[in-house]
Amino acid sequence: MSKKNNKEFTDLGLGTKTGSKNYRALNKDGSFNVRKVNVSFFEGLNLYHTLINTPWYNFLVILLSIYFSVNIIFASVYLIIGIENLTGFNVTNLTLLQQFYEAFFFSAQTVTTLGYGRVAPIGFIANVVAAIESLVGLLAFALATGLLYGRFSKPSAKIKYSYNAVIAPYKDIKGFMFRVTNPLKNQLMEIEVNVSVSFKRENSDIRNFYPLNLERSKIVFFPSIWTIVHPINDESPLLNFTQKELHEKDAEFIIILKMFDESFSQTVYSRSSYKAEEVLWNKKFKYIIEKD
Amino acid sequence: MSKKNNKEFTDLGLGTKTGSKNYRALNKDGSFNVRKVNVSFFEGLNLYHTLINTPWYNFLVILLSIYFSVNIIFASVYLIIGIENLTGFNVTNLTLLQQFYEAFFFSAQTVTTLGYGRVAPIGFIANVVAAIESLVGLLAFALATGLLYGRFSKPSAKIKYSYNAVIAPYKDIKGFMFRVTNPLKNQLMEIEVNVSVSFKRENSDIRNFYPLNLERSKIVFFPSIWTIVHPINDESPLLNFTQKELHEKDAEFIIILKMFDESFSQTVYSRSSYKAEEVLWNKKFKYIIEKD
Amino acid sequence: MSKKNNKEFTDLGLGTKTGSKNYRALNKDGSFNVRKVNVSFFEGLNLYHTLINTPWYNFLVILLSIYFSVNIIFASVYLIIGIENLTGFNVTNLTLLQQFYEAFFFSAQTVTTLGYGRVAPIGFIANVVAAIESLVGLLAFALATGLLYGRFSKPSAKIKYSYNAVIAPYKDIKGFMFRVTNPLKNQLMEIEVNVSVSFKRENSDIRNFYPLNLERSKIVFFPSIWTIVHPINDESPLLNFTQKELHEKDAEFIIILKMFDESFSQTVYSRSSYKAEEVLWNKKFKYIIEKD
Amino acid sequence: MSKKNNKEFTDLGLGTKTGSKNYRALNKDGSFNVRKVNVSFFEGLNLYHTLINTPWYNFLVILLSIYFSVNIIFASVYLIIGIENLTGFNVTNLTLLQQFYEAFFFSAQTVTTLGYGRVAPIGFIANVVAAIESLVGLLAFALATGLLYGRFSKPSAKIKYSYNAVIAPYKDIKGFMFRVTNPLKNQLMEIEVNVSVSFKRENSDIRNFYPLNLERSKIVFFPSIWTIVHPINDESPLLNFTQKELHEKDAEFIIILKMFDESFSQTVYSRSSYKAEEVLWNKKFKYIIEKD
Repeated sequence: MSKKNNKEFTDLGLGTKTGSKNYRALNKDGSFNVRKVNVSFFEGLNLYHTLINTPWYNFLVILLSIYFSVNIIFASVYLIIGIENLTGFNVTNLTLLQQFYEAFFFSAQTVTTLGYGRVAPIGFIANVVAAIESLVGLLAFALATGLLYGRFSKPSAKIKYSYNAVIAPYKDIKGFMFRVTNPLKNQLMEIEVNVSVSFKRENSDIRNFYPLNLERSKIVFFPSIWTIVHPINDESPLLNFTQKELHEKDAEFIIILKMFDESFSQTVYSRSSYKAEEVLWNKKFKYIIEKD
Repeated sequence: MSKKNNKEFTDLGLGTKTGSKNYRALNKDGSFNVRKVNVSFFEGLNLYHTLINTPWYNFLVILLSIYFSVNIIFASVYLIIGIENLTGFNVTNLTLLQQFYEAFFFSAQTVTTLGYGRVAPIGFIANVVAAIESLVGLLAFALATGLLYGRFSKPSAKIKYSYNAVIAPYKDIKGFMFRVTNPLKNQLMEIEVNVSVSFKRENSDIRNFYPLNLERSKIVFFPSIWTIVHPINDESPLLNFTQKELHEKDAEFIIILKMFDESFSQTVYSRSSYKAEEVLWNKKFKYIIEKD
Repeated sequence: MSKKNNKEFTDLGLGTKTGSKNYRALNKDGSFNVRKVNVSFFEGLNLYHTLINTPWYNFLVILLSIYFSVNIIFASVYLIIGIENLTGFNVTNLTLLQQFYEAFFFSAQTVTTLGYGRVAPIGFIANVVAAIESLVGLLAFALATGLLYGRFSKPSAKIKYSYNAVIAPYKDIKGFMFRVTNPLKNQLMEIEVNVSVSFKRENSDIRNFYPLNLERSKIVFFPSIWTIVHPINDESPLLNFTQKELHEKDAEFIIILKMFDESFSQTVYSRSSYKAEEVLWNKKFKYIIEKD
Repeated sequence: MSKKNNKEFTDLGLGTKTGSKNYRALNKDGSFNVRKVNVSFFEGLNLYHTLINTPWYNFLVILLSIYFSVNIIFASVYLIIGIENLTGFNVTNLTLLQQFYEAFFFSAQTVTTLGYGRVAPIGFIANVVAAIESLVGLLAFALATGLLYGRFSKPSAKIKYSYNAVIAPYKDIKGFMFRVTNPLKNQLMEIEVNVSVSFKRENSDIRNFYPLNLERSKIVFFPSIWTIVHPINDESPLLNFTQKELHEKDAEFIIILKMFDESFSQTVYSRSSYKAEEVLWNKKFKYIIEKD
């Protein structure tokens, strides 16, 4: 295969024992195909991480649920201490449900620090509860402010990868090539790309990983399209491979892009992978459909 | 030309096929002269990025429009569910327009959580709408807080470049020189500069890119003026060039500055370019007017 | 011992004079075992740092105390300037305690900008105090917003270390090994590990530090378990050591992990250490209990 | 002097023409002794930078002034459109000054979104002004929130430098030494130090800069005291210097420390300098008083 077998050890942290033939270490969207065994639910839970990365729909449902629940709880407290401690309505005219509504809306006006004042607390206990509720409200909205900002300002390099990679003539030899584009207006600077291939060993579930040298592994700007080329020269682990061999060895090409997103002033990563089936042979690039 | 033709490949990610003679890859303000073909409007849209980078005038117009629209919408809802669900005025004395005004101002007092209480909701539905509106208001102002902070705290190295570069005697040989200044009080640390030149090939739209070695490519402080010098020695792609050749080859000098802005604790970039017409020959620097 | 005695100087900044035999420079949780002499309380105090790192329980107690204290102070001010400057109750019917309660709750409604308006200031002085209090409230909650966000968004690589390290056969020689896992869902990228050992000199409190070469000191991903191996080859300071010698020299292995936490877009560090007693000899790793 | 005269060019960006003999490029607190000529006031102004770095006393005065001014302006507007558009008092009983007070306090209750409601707007114009004022208030406090957070969370490595440096015997030769301490609880990681010396040329205002090689220029931890040593060996520009020569050449030692502050997850810099007069000869370090 390659002369540089001594480079074989770079398993990237993905582990070398990877199970069945059709295993994929890295999904096309860049997420990892690794289940964490023996990690309890609570250990694996990171509240900030979860709330920042959950889809907007989930996030808004969670916010609404908390708002609703907090008001239910405080409304109940106002009912328990006696709704006659709130001004603004004649308690004798109201059914219990109506009293609960009034308490609920008073709670909503308190937790948001709206405080119309048509309904207001009188007496010691109701005032204490209202003072606590308004503090709870301010702190909760402080947290919501931080989370909304965190979600909104989270950098994400939405790099698009060509749907297929190709192995095609390149200069005098062959090359493994794929294309990346930056669909957003974000200015990306100092882009570094890292490409590896993993092969399943014969009669074994163990996988070996090989880094692939690239024609260029770093560019200063990333304003449009970039075709990344691994020349299949004497040092390439792909030297003299046929399409059939690539399938038999269940090859997986793993791509990591690291760049500086100038819009967010932060370093971001993008990942993807190509399986042997996604590599076309001897095609030209212009016929390739961009993957979503 | 240069002995280091093997360095020619560094095309910086700007692409090598760049069209007409007077093409400019990088505008003087550092923005890219690249149109993104085949990127739909929505793909190219990044809301946070847009709202952070739009001018303050636009940003305030957008904020005001949203504030106005939200109040129009909620005012309409209060009218639809019946303005008699709001206290504080005698509905029979009001024209429809006056009712709308009252609903609009009640909405404004609710969405900002101002809540004077002269007008307040009574009854189930009006209270539900007001509770929702106050939540909407708090979340919207949470977002506005984040965006205002993001806009305000966005680092931007407002480096100024000399309006012209010069090619002039430097030590025993010639040098390509330009000057940068830091007009702000920001402390800039560890400034790295990267200069390249691109030439149009004869009878072709293809461009070749060459890096230029610099007398000094990194300084620790950047408190005042820095003159950046490329010595035109044996290794320079500019060796033995005349002013006429520089124009014929439609030369473009591309400058990238990378630095750490201590005021914002962040890495920032600055970019500019000089076309052949902006390079003066054999001038001294003190006569050069600073460009804006 | 090692051929590379010239590497001995790398004392990591932990100091070389470290006192008694059972001294530990780095606690197992990664905190330093260093008391700062001659640093006054106020010099060592960093308010932001303290409030960000104090446990949630402390943080909430501090917030509540400040809220309570501020209201006590302003309630006293309203009493001093005369509670008849507040509307909403008949002051002649109230005991002094009841007056204080009313002033306290009015203060709470003002500092949170709740402003029901049942009680409201009239007259010049009460209005001035209320205007100041509402400003104080807004600024205080602005600070609380920032602190809550800072606490919540603080990256922390909760790397878990195997409870014991082992010295066991590795390839043809022996190796010093331990294991790290990433229990959270955070994507960790570009992990670098740095391992050193310190020995107490014979008949002295001075310690020498030696870096340990690793089979691999950097991986690109960190999605699951990583076994870190120092091969005890000719260049190792551990060459030909026995378990007894390791105890006599009071060995401490110091581990530093540096990585990029993609969830937080920030660089984070993790530290731990193993004392001679925590190193098992000739054990296999699967029998090792994960430490907390 | 030194064999490495070819290193002389590293002028650090401080410029080489520095005027009189007692010139100091870097003040002891790390600020630059450089006036920016030809930079207009507005060009040099960076509002965020200024508001983040101004002392707390100034910052609070600015905040109060803005709060006061905004209320003066809106109070005037309410007076101009007629104070009879506000409920809650009998306008005929009030002097103009009292009307202004009422308008001012109503404005304060509006801009903070307090909204007691004892005074509330009626009629179209007063409501429009109040709706605008509450929006202005929310956006202003959003900005204040960001600024307070920015001020509070600004990392600053409060490294303390020994008041004097010493030139004293070190191993077999002499060394230039000074000491730095980290008085805060902040964990500082990967500290890099960079030391240079500048000499005035004979009969000239031009200065030459020389880097100084250090015994150790990088440490992993910074938990306590670190003595930084430049060995005055054959390669040192200080070789064979006497105390008198150091004064005659008006030597200035420039120190730059770069480190990662784990508490803030950010890179920070610290700077200081020693003039020839601040270098003690042949003293031991324990007698040196820590500088503030």
